[in-house]
Amino acid sequence: MFYHVKELQYHAKPERPDPIFAKKLQEVLGGQFGEISVALQYLFQGWNTRGDGKYRDLILDTGTEELAHIEMLATMIARLLDGAPVGDVETAAKDPIVGAILGGMNPQHVIVSGLGAMPADSVGNRWTADYIVASGNLLADFRANLNAESQGRLQVARLYYETNDPGVRDMLSWLLARDTMHQNQWYAAICELEEKENIVVPSNFPRHLEKQEVSYTLFNFSKGNASAQGRWAHGPSMDGLGQFNYVANPPAFGEKPKLAPAPPHIFNTLPQVMREDIPPSLK
Amino acid sequence: MFYHVKELQYHAKPERPDPIFAKKLQEVLGGQFGEISVALQYLFQGWNTRGDGKYRDLILDTGTEELAHIEMLATMIARLLDGAPVGDVETAAKDPIVGAILGGMNPQHVIVSGLGAMPADSVGNRWTADYIVASGNLLADFRANLNAESQGRLQVARLYYETNDPGVRDMLSWLLARDTMHQNQWYAAICELEEKENIVVPSNFPRHLEKQEVSYTLFNFSKGNASAQGRWAHGPSMDGLGQFNYVANPPAFGEKPKLAPAPPHIFNTLPQVMREDIPPSLK
Amino acid sequence: MFYHVKELQYHAKPERPDPIFAKKLQEVLGGQFGEISVALQYLFQGWNTRGDGKYRDLILDTGTEELAHIEMLATMIARLLDGAPVGDVETAAKDPIVGAILGGMNPQHVIVSGLGAMPADSVGNRWTADYIVASGNLLADFRANLNAESQGRLQVARLYYETNDPGVRDMLSWLLARDTMHQNQWYAAICELEEKENIVVPSNFPRHLEKQEVSYTLFNFSKGNASAQGRWAHGPSMDGLGQFNYVANPPAFGEKPKLAPAPPHIFNTLPQVMREDIPPSLK
Amino acid sequence: MFYHVKELQYHAKPERPDPIFAKKLQEVLGGQFGEISVALQYLFQGWNTRGDGKYRDLILDTGTEELAHIEMLATMIARLLDGAPVGDVETAAKDPIVGAILGGMNPQHVIVSGLGAMPADSVGNRWTADYIVASGNLLADFRANLNAESQGRLQVARLYYETNDPGVRDMLSWLLARDTMHQNQWYAAICELEEKENIVVPSNFPRHLEKQEVSYTLFNFSKGNASAQGRWAHGPSMDGLGQFNYVANPPAFGEKPKLAPAPPHIFNTLPQVMREDIPPSLK
Amino acid sequence: MFYHVKELQYHAKPERPDPIFAKKLQEVLGGQFGEISVALQYLFQGWNTRGDGKYRDLILDTGTEELAHIEMLATMIARLLDGAPVGDVETAAKDPIVGAILGGMNPQHVIVSGLGAMPADSVGNRWTADYIVASGNLLADFRANLNAESQGRLQVARLYYETNDPGVRDMLSWLLARDTMHQNQWYAAICELEEKENIVVPSNFPRHLEKQEVSYTLFNFSKGNASAQGRWAHGPSMDGLGQFNYVANPPAFGEKPKLAPAPPHIFNTLPQVMREDIPPSLK
Amino acid sequence: MFYHVKELQYHAKPERPDPIFAKKLQEVLGGQFGEISVALQYLFQGWNTRGDGKYRDLILDTGTEELAHIEMLATMIARLLDGAPVGDVETAAKDPIVGAILGGMNPQHVIVSGLGAMPADSVGNRWTADYIVASGNLLADFRANLNAESQGRLQVARLYYETNDPGVRDMLSWLLARDTMHQNQWYAAICELEEKENIVVPSNFPRHLEKQEVSYTLFNFSKGNASAQGRWAHGPSMDGLGQFNYVANPPAFGEKPKLAPAPPHIFNTLPQVMREDIPPSLK
Repeated sequence: MFYHVKELQYHAKPERPDPIFAKKLQEVLGGQFGEISVALQYLFQGWNTRGDGKYRDLILDTGTEELAHIEMLATMIARLLDGAPVGDVETAAKDPIVGAILGGMNPQHVIVSGLGAMPADSVGNRWTADYIVASGNLLADFRANLNAESQGRLQVARLYYETNDPGVRDMLSWLLARDTMHQNQWYAAICELEEKENIVVPSNFPRHLEKQEVSYTLFNFSKGNASAQGRWAHGPSMDGLGQFNYVANPPAFGEKPKLAPAPPHIFNTLPQVMREDIPPSLK
Repeated sequence: MFYHVKELQYHAKPERPDPIFAKKLQEVLGGQFGEISVALQYLFQGWNTRGDGKYRDLILDTGTEELAHIEMLATMIARLLDGAPVGDVETAAKDPIVGAILGGMNPQHVIVSGLGAMPADSVGNRWTADYIVASGNLLADFRANLNAESQGRLQVARLYYETNDPGVRDMLSWLLARDTMHQNQWYAAICELEEKENIVVPSNFPRHLEKQEVSYTLFNFSKGNASAQGRWAHGPSMDGLGQFNYVANPPAFGEKPKLAPAPPHIFNTLPQVMREDIPPSLK
Repeated sequence: MFYHVKELQYHAKPERPDPIFAKKLQEVLGGQFGEISVALQYLFQGWNTRGDGKYRDLILDTGTEELAHIEMLATMIARLLDGAPVGDVETAAKDPIVGAILGGMNPQHVIVSGLGAMPADSVGNRWTADYIVASGNLLADFRANLNAESQGRLQVARLYYETNDPGVRDMLSWLLARDTMHQNQWYAAICELEEKENIVVPSNFPRHLEKQEVSYTLFNFSKGNASAQGRWAHGPSMDGLGQFNYVANPPAFGEKPKLAPAPPHIFNTLPQVMREDIPPSLK
Repeated sequence: MFYHVKELQYHAKPERPDPIFAKKLQEVLGGQFGEISVALQYLFQGWNTRGDGKYRDLILDTGTEELAHIEMLATMIARLLDGAPVGDVETAAKDPIVGAILGGMNPQHVIVSGLGAMPADSVGNRWTADYIVASGNLLADFRANLNAESQGRLQVARLYYETNDPGVRDMLSWLLARDTMHQNQWYAAICELEEKENIVVPSNFPRHLEKQEVSYTLFNFSKGNASAQGRWAHGPSMDGLGQFNYVANPPAFGEKPKLAPAPPHIFNTLPQVMREDIPPSLK
Repeated sequence: MFYHVKELQYHAKPERPDPIFAKKLQEVLGGQFGEISVALQYLFQGWNTRGDGKYRDLILDTGTEELAHIEMLATMIARLLDGAPVGDVETAAKDPIVGAILGGMNPQHVIVSGLGAMPADSVGNRWTADYIVASGNLLADFRANLNAESQGRLQVARLYYETNDPGVRDMLSWLLARDTMHQNQWYAAICELEEKENIVVPSNFPRHLEKQEVSYTLFNFSKGNASAQGRWAHGPSMDGLGQFNYVANPPAFGEKPKLAPAPPHIFNTLPQVMREDIPPSLK
Repeated sequence: MFYHVKELQYHAKPERPDPIFAKKLQEVLGGQFGEISVALQYLFQGWNTRGDGKYRDLILDTGTEELAHIEMLATMIARLLDGAPVGDVETAAKDPIVGAILGGMNPQHVIVSGLGAMPADSVGNRWTADYIVASGNLLADFRANLNAESQGRLQVARLYYETNDPGVRDMLSWLLARDTMHQNQWYAAICELEEKENIVVPSNFPRHLEKQEVSYTLFNFSKGNASAQGRWAHGPSMDGLGQFNYVANPPAFGEKPKLAPAPPHIFNTLPQVMREDIPPSLK
C-alpha cells in the first residue's frame, strides 16, 4: 500500500518555458529507460520476490522513489510548456524562433494533454511494458536494473547539455546523483549474489546438461581476428570453471535442414506442386 | 555484408512433433530476450560503434552467431509442428490428449504461418524493437548484453524442464552453453571497461555537476529497515568515490507544486471555472 | 513523493493454486481497464492539474490507492501460480485435469516471470499507455474515469463467476466495493462540474463558432427508424440550449472530392499515366 | 452491409496548403480519440448488441456517420499536403518559413503516403484497437462513448486555434457541432439506462457479494484533507444506497505478503541461495 | 459518406456454439490480413487517390464491401460464443470436453467483450494500422491488395478445415468466393497498369539515376548454386530492359566503415577511453 | 549459419552531415517497408520453406543481401549525424538554419542512440514484426515480396529528391537498382508458380466448396458506375475459369441479425433490463 506526499522529492522548476526541451525531456519520463520503466520494473520485481526480505525491501524502496521521479519530471514538463506558442506555423515563422518552436514541439502537448506531461517518449511513442523485466531470478534482474540505471543516467547526461536553463539543470543534477547511487546499489547487490552463486545465470542449472564443449569458445564469424585481442578469448573463463578458447574459422556442427512437406489442408506450396496427389476429400 | 551457410550451426531435430512445446519455444525465438533480440541488438551496437576495433568485431561476431540461433529455433519449431492435429476441438476432445493439444497450441501456427515459426513470443506478441538497445556507450550496452544473456539462459533452462524430448534437449544444451560463453564474454569486456572508466555510466560526466549530497544515499521509503542490512547501505561506495549512507525517514526536498492555469484556447478546466474571464476573442 | 507500506490494503490469498485463473486475473491487473491503467491515468491527471486543489487531491489519493490494488493483484497471481504443473503436455494429458491446465495456462508465467505476475492482460498483451488519458480538462477526464471504473467493475464481476475459490472471491469483493465507491465519487465530481459548466465538453468553446444547424440533429444512416424512438431524437437537448431533431434521410452537404495530382517527384500514379509530361529533370 | 456515397458529408477544402497543420490534424483522424476510434468503437458495440433494437440502431447509425468523418479528414489532409515543399532542409532554411515547414512536417506524408492521409496520430503512432471498447454492457459503453466525444471535441477545439484558414475552420465547425450532438445523445441514453438500472455498473451484480463496508468510503492517501471538501466525501452516495464517509488515515486491512519459494526447476533466486537443497535430478 | 443496411451481406449463423473456433475466427476479422485490414487499406487508398475515377471507385466499392465482411464475422463470432461455459477449469476438467474448451478459449471473450467479437486476432493482438498501406502509387498498392487477398483466402481455406459446422462453412464459402473475385480484380487492374507503365515501381523514376550495373544481377550469398536454376538468373529481365545475370561469389563493393568518434557531450565510449582529452567544460 | 564480411556491400558515405535527412532515411531502414522488414521477411520465409530447394535458396540469398543493406543504411545514418548541433533551440534559432535543424531532427538520435542509427522509422516508431509475413504458401509470399520491393523502391525514389548530397544519392542509386532486380526476380518466380498453379491463392482449395455464384462478380457499392469501366467487370476472369459480371445494385443476401441475450453472469445489458428474471444465485 502507498501514501502520497504532496511535496516533491526535489525541485522541478525551470527558469523559463521551453516546449522543445519539454518534448525531449519526455524521453526520461516515458521512454524505454525512463522513470516509468524503472518504477514499474522495480515494483513488479519486488512484488514477485519469493523470500529474501532485504532484497524485496531494497527493490520496493527504490521503486517507490522512482514514482517520485516520475512526479518531478511530469511537473517540470508541465511548467516547460507554460508559454507554448499557438497558431499556424507560416505566420509564426516570420519570427524564426517562434517558427522553429512551433515546428519542433510535440503537437500532442497542446492537442492531447493540454500542456501536460504524457506517458510517452521524446518522439511520442506511448510507454509500454515491453520495456521492463521481472524474472524471479534476482541476479538476472539486478543486471537488468544496473543496465536500466546506466542507460538512464547516460540519457540524463546527454539532456544536461541540451539546455542551459539553471532550474532544469538543477533537477537533472538530482537525477544524475540518484542514478549514481542506484548504479552503486545494484552493483553491490550483484557482487553479493555473484559471490554466493558464481556469475552465470541461472547458477543452479546443472552444468553437465549443457554442451560444455562450447561453453567457453569464442567463434569468430568474420574475416580478421580483431575479436581475438580481448580477455574473452584467452585465459581462464570469468566464472573460473573453464578456459576461454578462440575458433578462427567456426564450422557448422549441424546439417542442412530439410523440412517435411505440410499436409494438404494447410495449403502450403507443395514441393513439386503435385496437385494430383491431393486426397479426393480436398478436391 | 553477410554470407549464408546452408548447414545449421547445431542440430535442431526433435524426436517427435509437439505443437504445444512449439508455442512455448517461440519465447526464446521472438520474445523480449529471444534470439531476434540479441541478434539485432548486437548488430546495431556493432554498426554504431565509433572506433575501438576489437569491441566492434566482438559485437558483430556475436550478433552474427545469434542469426544462426534464430535459424536453429525456426527449424526446430517447424519440425515440432509437423504433426499438428486439425479439426474442431469438441470432436477432438473425445481423446483428451488431442483435445488438450488443440486447445493449447497457437492457432496462428496453422492459420497464419502454415506450420512455420513466427517472429513472435510464446503468447503471440510479435517481436518489436522496443526490446533492444544500442546507446553508443559500450559499458552501458555490455551491461544490457549481460542482462539479455542472463534472462535468455534462464528462459532456456526453464524450457529444458518443460520437455523430455531428447532432440529438443540436445539443441537447448547448445544454447545453454553458448549463453554461458556469452555471459562470460560480456562480463570480461565489462571488467576491462570498468577498470579504465570506473563503474558509473557515463564515466565522463563531470561529477561536480551532479547533486553529490545524495550520490551514495539509500532512502528508505517504507516502514521497517530490512533494506539497511545490505552492502549498499554502509561502507565505501562501489565506485570508491564516496560512502554509502542510509536515511531511514527521507524528507521531501522540494515544495508542493502549483501549476499556472493554462491559457483559454487550451480549454482546460480553469481553477475557478471562471468563464467570465475568458477574452472576447474566445467567445 | 510516495511511501510504501509493507502490508497489503486487503487480503490476497487464494485457498488453492489455479494457474488458469491466474492467467485470467491478469486482465484486471494489466489489461485495458486494469489497475495499472487507473493508477497511471489518475496520477498523470493529478500531476497535470493546474489549480483546483480539491480535485488534484482527490485524483492523486485515488491513484495512490490503485497502486495498492496492483500490489494485491500481483500478490494473488503469484500465489495462484504456486503449484503450476511442469512438463510436456502429452504426458500430462493422461490426467485430463493436468492436461487442460498445462494447455490453458500462460506459458510466460513459467518461462518469463518465474511464477510471478506480469504487466500484461489475460492474453499476454503487455500494458501500454495507449490505454490512458489525461487531457487537462477535468470534466472530460472524470468521464474517462467513470468509464474506466465501470468497465473495470464489470470485468471483476465477470471474473467472480469464473472461480469458486473463497479467498479469491474475498479479494474480488473488495475490488467490487472500491469500484462502487469510485464510480460514485467520479459521478459526484461530474455533477459538480456539469452544474457549473453545462454538459458539453469543452464548455467554454464559443458556441457561435460551431455549425449550430446540426448541433442537435440525429442523422439516421440506415433504413428503418428504430433510432428515432429515444429521448435523443425529440424534445429539448440535454444541455438545454437546443431542440433535438431527427433526419430520416440525411443528405450529403459536401461535394464529391477531386484531389489535385501529386507533383512528379512523389512518384504517385498520375491521372492518365502521362509519362511524357514529366519534367526533364525527372528523366 | 454498407453503401458508399461519393459526396462528402460536409466540405473539406482548405484555402491554402499547410503541411504542418496536416500533421496536427492527423490527431483527430487516427489518434486515440480520433474518428477511426469512434467509428470502429461504435460499429463493434452495435454488432455485439444482444437485443434492444433502438440502442443497436442508434449506435450503428452513429458509427456509420463517423466513417464519413474519417473520409472528410482524409480529404482535408490530402489537400493540406498539396504544396508540400521538397528538398534538403539546409538549403530550404535560407527561407526560414520553408525551413520551419520542412523541419516540422511529418516525413511520412511524403515518403510513405505520397501526400495522403495516414491511419496515424499527430506524432505518427499508427492507430491501434487498444483505443476502443465494446463490452456488451451498454451503460458502461455509453460512458465510454460520452468520454470519447468529450475528448474528441476538446481536441478539435484546440486545433481550431492552431489555424486561421477559413476552409479548415469551416470543417472543424461541423465536427464541433456533431460532437455537441453526440455528447447530448449519449448523455440522453445514459440517463435512460441509469433511471432503469441505478448508476453503478454492472447494476445487476448482487450487492451483498461486495465488501459493502467500504463501498462509500473515501480513503485519504496523503497528508492534508483537501479531498474531503467535495460532495464525494459526505452525504448520501450518488446511487442512493449508502452514505459517503471519509477516512483521513486509512489503515492496511491486509497482512504483509510472504510468498512461498518457487520449485527448483524455475531457477528463481532461492531465499537463502541454498544450492545444496536442490534435488539430485537438477544437478 | 456511408449508409448502413441492417441485413447482412450473407448468412452468418453457426449450427452450434464453439468458443474455440470463435477464437480462431478472430484471425480473419482482426488479424494482419483480416477484414479490418482490407477494409481500411482500401478506404484509405481510395480517399488518397488523386484522379483516375475508375480506380478510385473500384477501390472504394471494394473497401465498402469489406466493411460488410467485418460485420458478418463479428456476428458469427458472437453466435459461436453463445454457449460459452463458465466456471473454474479444475471442476470443469472432470468433463474433458468442457475442460479443453475452458482452457482453450480466449478469456477476453468473456471478461472484456461479454461474448462479443473483438478487434483482435486469434491470439489476442489488437488490430493495428501497422498492417495496412496506401502509398499513392496504384501499381504498388494493387500489389499490396493482391497480396492481402492471397493471404486472406489462404487463411480462410485453412480455417475451413478446422471446423465441420455447416453454418460456419457456408459463410466461409462466401468469403472464399469473394476473395477469388478480389484476387481476379486486382490482378486485372495490375495488368492494365503494367501494360501502361512497365512492371518496375515506380515506373517514372529516371532509370539512368539508378546503379544500372546491378539492376539485373542475382547475387548468390551462399555456398551452392540452387538459386541459379530459376528464370530470375538467366535470359531477358521481366521488364524487358536488361539481361539477368548470376554472380556466384559476390564481392563487397564498399569499404570497411570507420566512424568518427562522437563529441564528448554525447558520452559515448571514446576510442581509447581518453578521458584526459575531454574539454574542461565537461569536467 | 552466417558469416560477416567487414566491408560494406556498397559505399555509404555522405559528403556532409545532415541530421534531418538522417531522420528521414530511417524510414527505409526501420519502417514498414524498410530493410529490416525485407531481411526478416525473407529469412523467415526461407527457414519455413518445406521442400523446393531453388526457391528456398533464392529467398535466403536475398534475405542475406538485405542484411547488408541494413548495415549500409545504419552506417550512412551514423555519418549523417556526425555534426548534429547541440544546445537549446531558442539560442540556436538565432541562426535559422541551426534552429530548423534542432527543431526538426529526431531527439532520440542524440539522447537514446548517441548519434547512431535506430531500429525505427522516420517518425520514431520502433520496428515491429507486424510488418512481415511468411505463410508457407510461396505464391502468396512472393506477392508479399513483390509488394515490399515496390513500396520500398517507391520510398527510396522519394527520398532521392529530398537530398542533393552526392554521396547519399550514390548509395540510394544502389538501393534503387537492387530493388529493380528484386522486383524482377519475384515477378519471375510468380510467373513460374502461376503457370503451374493458376493465379488464385491457394490454388488447391477445392473450387466447388466456394460459393461460385459470386466468384467473379463486381458488386458496385456506390451510386455511379465508374467502376464498371475496367477489365475487372466484363469478359473472362483472369484465372480463365469464369466470366466477370457487374452488379450495379447489390442486394443483401443475408438476414437482419438478432443475437440471443447473454446469460446473467456476463452482466451485459439485458434486452428489457429485466432484473427480476435474474436467477436467485445472482442476487
